[in-house]
Amino acid sequence: MPSISKRGENVPMSPFRKLIPFADKAKEAGRHVYHLNIGQPDIETPAYALQQVRATNMKVLEYSPATGLASYRKKLTAYYRKFGIEVSADEIIVTTGASEAIQFAFLSCLDHKDEVIVPEPFYANYNGFAQIADIRIRPVTCHIEDGFSLPDTAAFEKRVTTDTKGIFITNPNNPTGCFYSRESLEGLAELCRNYNLFLFVDEVYREFCYDGNEFFSALNIKGVEDHVIMLDSISKRYSACGARVGSLVTRNRAVLDAATRYAKLRLSPPGLGQILAEATLDMEETYMEEVKTEYTRRRDVVYSRLSRMDGVVSYCPGGAFYCFAKFPIDSAERFCRWMLEEFDLNGATVMLSPGEGFYASPGHGIDEVRIAYVLNSEALQKAMDCLEAGLQAYPGRVESAGRVPVKATSR
Amino acid sequence: MPSISKRGENVPMSPFRKLIPFADKAKEAGRHVYHLNIGQPDIETPAYALQQVRATNMKVLEYSPATGLASYRKKLTAYYRKFGIEVSADEIIVTTGASEAIQFAFLSCLDHKDEVIVPEPFYANYNGFAQIADIRIRPVTCHIEDGFSLPDTAAFEKRVTTDTKGIFITNPNNPTGCFYSRESLEGLAELCRNYNLFLFVDEVYREFCYDGNEFFSALNIKGVEDHVIMLDSISKRYSACGARVGSLVTRNRAVLDAATRYAKLRLSPPGLGQILAEATLDMEETYMEEVKTEYTRRRDVVYSRLSRMDGVVSYCPGGAFYCFAKFPIDSAERFCRWMLEEFDLNGATVMLSPGEGFYASPGHGIDEVRIAYVLNSEALQKAMDCLEAGLQAYPGRVESAGRVPVKATSR
Repeated sequence: MPSISKRGENVPMSPFRKLIPFADKAKEAGRHVYHLNIGQPDIETPAYALQQVRATNMKVLEYSPATGLASYRKKLTAYYRKFGIEVSADEIIVTTGASEAIQFAFLSCLDHKDEVIVPEPFYANYNGFAQIADIRIRPVTCHIEDGFSLPDTAAFEKRVTTDTKGIFITNPNNPTGCFYSRESLEGLAELCRNYNLFLFVDEVYREFCYDGNEFFSALNIKGVEDHVIMLDSISKRYSACGARVGSLVTRNRAVLDAATRYAKLRLSPPGLGQILAEATLDMEETYMEEVKTEYTRRRDVVYSRLSRMDGVVSYCPGGAFYCFAKFPIDSAERFCRWMLEEFDLNGATVMLSPGEGFYASPGHGIDEVRIAYVLNSEALQKAMDCLEAGLQAYPGRVESAGRVPVKATSR
Repeated sequence: MPSISKRGENVPMSPFRKLIPFADKAKEAGRHVYHLNIGQPDIETPAYALQQVRATNMKVLEYSPATGLASYRKKLTAYYRKFGIEVSADEIIVTTGASEAIQFAFLSCLDHKDEVIVPEPFYANYNGFAQIADIRIRPVTCHIEDGFSLPDTAAFEKRVTTDTKGIFITNPNNPTGCFYSRESLEGLAELCRNYNLFLFVDEVYREFCYDGNEFFSALNIKGVEDHVIMLDSISKRYSACGARVGSLVTRNRAVLDAATRYAKLRLSPPGLGQILAEATLDMEETYMEEVKTEYTRRRDVVYSRLSRMDGVVSYCPGGAFYCFAKFPIDSAERFCRWMLEEFDLNGATVMLSPGEGFYASPGHGIDEVRIAYVLNSEALQKAMDCLEAGLQAYPGRVESAGRVPVKATSR
């Protein structure tokens, strides 16, 4: 039998993926599992947009242009303009989700063994995309004590080597929910200008900024027009994860040319998804306002419950729909598995993502979890009831968060 | 300004892509262009399948499972059974078109600098997928004189090195339309068994076999169950190129595991496209019969016209909807461009793909073109009228096909 590739053996997995069999078993055993482990919102996709898909009268579902439907790209320019972003339609490449946009960006900008600096914890699938592109991620560690805000630029500067080609950030952040201010973005941009680096910014959560935080796109920073590559997706914005429609936006012509050629290789992004995506841009704005209000409510539920739990360290996330929490436990991986295998409260339990997999530096996140508040407030309250009771009952509980037995941290 | 990657600068392009601006200009100038350059059929997507998309009553367009909807994978097993292929649903991974299936196969089975042997001319985008995966394509040259049938296995064996990990074929073939017999497939399979290689087979044109040729899947060859990786797509079968739904099918568990992890990285294949794809499997079979009859008619038009053209070498293709032809010209690239820039017959011209880009070996295909017979018979007749007149009028015409001036061949 021919052996598979080494890279195939070593594809990095999402931190929660290995827990899925335990969640499945819990459900088979009749227990309800509150899924706070994945960014699949329960919010309805805009009914108007789904209706436009139903109303299509096409005869042939053809390839769209490789860079996306012209009509959709044009409407996207108007959407971005609402955030003060002035780009033309030919500075937008429609992709198969942000996943593909990230891959096009890596391939177009980095060669084998080149490096990007990424604040950690970060969206774990970046590891996999980096493996495919054969590039290296150099982490800069953020800390739960200050809500995972960006370290000063000196911390990034220390990581710059001759192989560094860019800095990659997600704003607002997944998995931390941290909102990055204009000032901290401008600091990174200056670094990118000084060292001639790309600034990759995943902005898929731009609509989810709370407490009056006003979103500021990296595309609006002056003087780095040729450095900034923005990655986007409609998945979270319109609760349309299955549409698989994202985009890559940049003013750098050489990057656009290269990414366009990568786009042509795979012929076109999904056609039906683009119909839905285009329709979202014809809707009234009330949809997003309602969604944002709903997520603010959910965020408040999670934060207020976590802050009252004994020994738990967390913070109030300013954006996206995630937060991290540090628990008084020996190992988040063991705890999350135990919650699925051993625990229930009135027949229900909760599934979270262990934090360690979101860090590239070893030894971090061992007693941390990511919580995705993608359920309604009532379900979230019940999930928090489960979590609170689980933390009390867990046999690997330690005195307080952060006091992890040496054995666990030295893994 | 940061510079883009070397690979980004060098992404291989489809052979017809550089002609697109000339086609656009021809159309702007009011000329009609018969597009025989791309495999975008004009056949209607099954109305029943489009209707099922319109009938969806989903509220949330969620991620599907990373490997595809369970219901769709199950129905695919019944579809494959019609070709005698016995596979289970968990041996199928639903992908974003065959493009993604090929990439998953390369990444899962080959490491950097590993090699695959591919008969040439081949589907030009394989070059790009090989570049992304950082692998090498080793060509085995096929010849127009025998309709591009597979050379004997000795020709493949000569190409085997210590870096060879597999053989990659497309059956029926794009770009040649060649149908591969069971015997020639079994010959390659034996070679794969002897040298412990993967046998990658792109079978997206399995429905398009003419003249009583009966399709035989590589998955049905005994003794190489762990060697064969089949790549598939609904794009051509159901004229649903924009759905972006394909599949990777194998019985090799390790490959399935690796490809599944790559699939999880990009979360899910397109949701709406999968609804359409699943619906195609609930239809009556008359659709495919009618389509096949139509393509047979088109094939006959093209072949009979080419065989009557002075100085043209071609053959009767047994499958898919392409054929190659050798013209009495100095350069197919110059000819194809001239047809768009300088020529018209009653206000119309034809766009073809120059053959050279389908070869990896230098110096081949310089006076050859690929013709995709994706238009109805009437339009095809008119396109052949243009071609015939163009070949007569072309200033770079040479005495007979194959007599190419030294200057052109030595490029």
